[in-house]
Amino acid sequence: MEKSPEEQHPIKAFGWAARDVSGFLSPFNFSRRETGEKDVQINILYCGICHTDLHCAKNEWGSSKYPIVPGHEIMGVVTETGGKVTKFKVGDKVGVGCMVGSCLSCENCSNNLENYCKKIILTYNSVYHDGTPTYGGYSDILVANEHFVVRIPDNLPLDAGAPLLCAGITTYSPLKYFGLDKPGMHIGIVGLGGLGHIAVKFAKAFGVKITVISTSLHKKKKALEHLGADSFLVSTDKDQMKAAMDSMDGILDTASAVHPLLPLISLLKSHGKLVMVGAPDRPLELPVFPMLAGRKILAGSGIGGMKETQEMLDFAAEHNIVADIEIIPMDYVNTAMERLSRADVKYRFVIDVANSLKAA
Amino acid sequence: MEKSPEEQHPIKAFGWAARDVSGFLSPFNFSRRETGEKDVQINILYCGICHTDLHCAKNEWGSSKYPIVPGHEIMGVVTETGGKVTKFKVGDKVGVGCMVGSCLSCENCSNNLENYCKKIILTYNSVYHDGTPTYGGYSDILVANEHFVVRIPDNLPLDAGAPLLCAGITTYSPLKYFGLDKPGMHIGIVGLGGLGHIAVKFAKAFGVKITVISTSLHKKKKALEHLGADSFLVSTDKDQMKAAMDSMDGILDTASAVHPLLPLISLLKSHGKLVMVGAPDRPLELPVFPMLAGRKILAGSGIGGMKETQEMLDFAAEHNIVADIEIIPMDYVNTAMERLSRADVKYRFVIDVANSLKAA
Repeated sequence: MEKSPEEQHPIKAFGWAARDVSGFLSPFNFSRRETGEKDVQINILYCGICHTDLHCAKNEWGSSKYPIVPGHEIMGVVTETGGKVTKFKVGDKVGVGCMVGSCLSCENCSNNLENYCKKIILTYNSVYHDGTPTYGGYSDILVANEHFVVRIPDNLPLDAGAPLLCAGITTYSPLKYFGLDKPGMHIGIVGLGGLGHIAVKFAKAFGVKITVISTSLHKKKKALEHLGADSFLVSTDKDQMKAAMDSMDGILDTASAVHPLLPLISLLKSHGKLVMVGAPDRPLELPVFPMLAGRKILAGSGIGGMKETQEMLDFAAEHNIVADIEIIPMDYVNTAMERLSRADVKYRFVIDVANSLKAA
Repeated sequence: MEKSPEEQHPIKAFGWAARDVSGFLSPFNFSRRETGEKDVQINILYCGICHTDLHCAKNEWGSSKYPIVPGHEIMGVVTETGGKVTKFKVGDKVGVGCMVGSCLSCENCSNNLENYCKKIILTYNSVYHDGTPTYGGYSDILVANEHFVVRIPDNLPLDAGAPLLCAGITTYSPLKYFGLDKPGMHIGIVGLGGLGHIAVKFAKAFGVKITVISTSLHKKKKALEHLGADSFLVSTDKDQMKAAMDSMDGILDTASAVHPLLPLISLLKSHGKLVMVGAPDRPLELPVFPMLAGRKILAGSGIGGMKETQEMLDFAAEHNIVADIEIIPMDYVNTAMERLSRADVKYRFVIDVANSLKAA
């Protein structure tokens, strides 16, 4: 008979879990494995709430296996290290992002692209090498292979830094890989949510000219005055969009709702790149001729590898880049999820796990 | 009053033109300009029939202005040169492809990418700098600025070489630009028509492994035995397609009919590139998640610049690459167009202009 979540491993753990498609989260007793040779045990301090958490809690992608403890923007402190751990010692500030395992031998893994490994093990709602489910960061402790743990630079705050582990790397990696990080370039950022607002901060640090593209005029002030974008386009305003045609070297599209691509493709100069990091649940309409006429590129990108995640954190610390967050206690999580579904957050919820989970 | 096509210029010219959306071609008297300082006058010997000729003759793209003399795979001999012409002399074998003009000063033109110039002047159905219509190669003579004329290497046959001027550069350029020309790579070629069969020949010369992907099983023998492709996939055979998933570094998609993208995206390895050179007249359905999951790229490409067109011809001559053609007299052109619309040609019609136009 399969063991219960509490009995699967020897170390008691506690968190909040979704039990069904309602997505409602409630206190949950489970367990973590003993610290293996290459593992570190982490006392979780903060965990960001990513939109993926909401999708998974409600099984909106059809792949959820309940109970689910969400959370893959995890910040904490090392409390125990395995005998063969070389990167960390007890007391180190560390982070865990979207993945906790991969094959470590395929071509992608060999190229520090564990995020594209076919055998990637996600931080939650996945199955670990030992056959047990993975549980995420809405919990008190985590045991992880040190390969999938990153060091948090001293000056990076653990609360506002947490969203960098998903939203940060998801935007940093494609801006670098697709060469949209060259000073003087003109880059569009579509959507000003959790991903978009961090993308603007990275792009600004890279020294590119930034235009935020949004359906919501009310985000203009925030984009220009607070985040320092150079200009703002309302994507539904045809005159504005027409005036900006052929002006951008690249666009990072963080929108996860179904949306038209032609207006974005039209904003690109010849040879420009439209990079998508949001995942609409239905196919988008792709007009081919405008792609041919300007040798344009449309691409996708998903998070980033461990080496680049560390590089991104170091870059963020150096340039004082953190997320704009609203810090919440654990027992506010269901309200937070509901607000997130209405995009009512500027721009990321972060759960103060250490100070609020024990009270739950 | 606007001058008639016969009176617009001083040099008498004769060709075949479409007069209306029937696309039916018939003899047509018009005129060519006198040879300007930077111009060469060309006696046309051969002209390939591109699918674009059919689209334009029938106004299928909505941009046709009749009368239209189609033809942009033009091979001929220089009969006169302007005073400032430096590249050619009388008697030289030359070619003219899809364009006869551009601004020559924008960023694209400065980078030898005249094909992406916003002011590109197409070889036919376009308006030249002097305000008169451009007429293509289904005609006896052509006057063109030497910048848009290429030299035909001595060993390249003028008849079978003609399709290189459109179908050749359209496939060569993206294979090079997107880095799909590295020995050892595995490249898919979708469609085995005019473009596809030349793409296979170039890819073979580059030393890549080639899989032809087609809806038609009956093209298998031709692909493998005649063109020397390494393997063949029937795109509607789900088992075959599934077995080939994650196996290709890149795909050149020459299909111009509306077709599903997901099966092609699935054939790509992580970081693979799907490059489209056909232009379906309606948008295609693009599933975004599979793009993200493998950091895949979808791109478009349209013909190539003049410098690269010359490079392509020199490469083709060196590797004995020509199109497989069916040579036809001018008065067969309407039948040829009708057969082309049924894809009943292996693989390109070429009109023997010099030997058949005068008899018309």
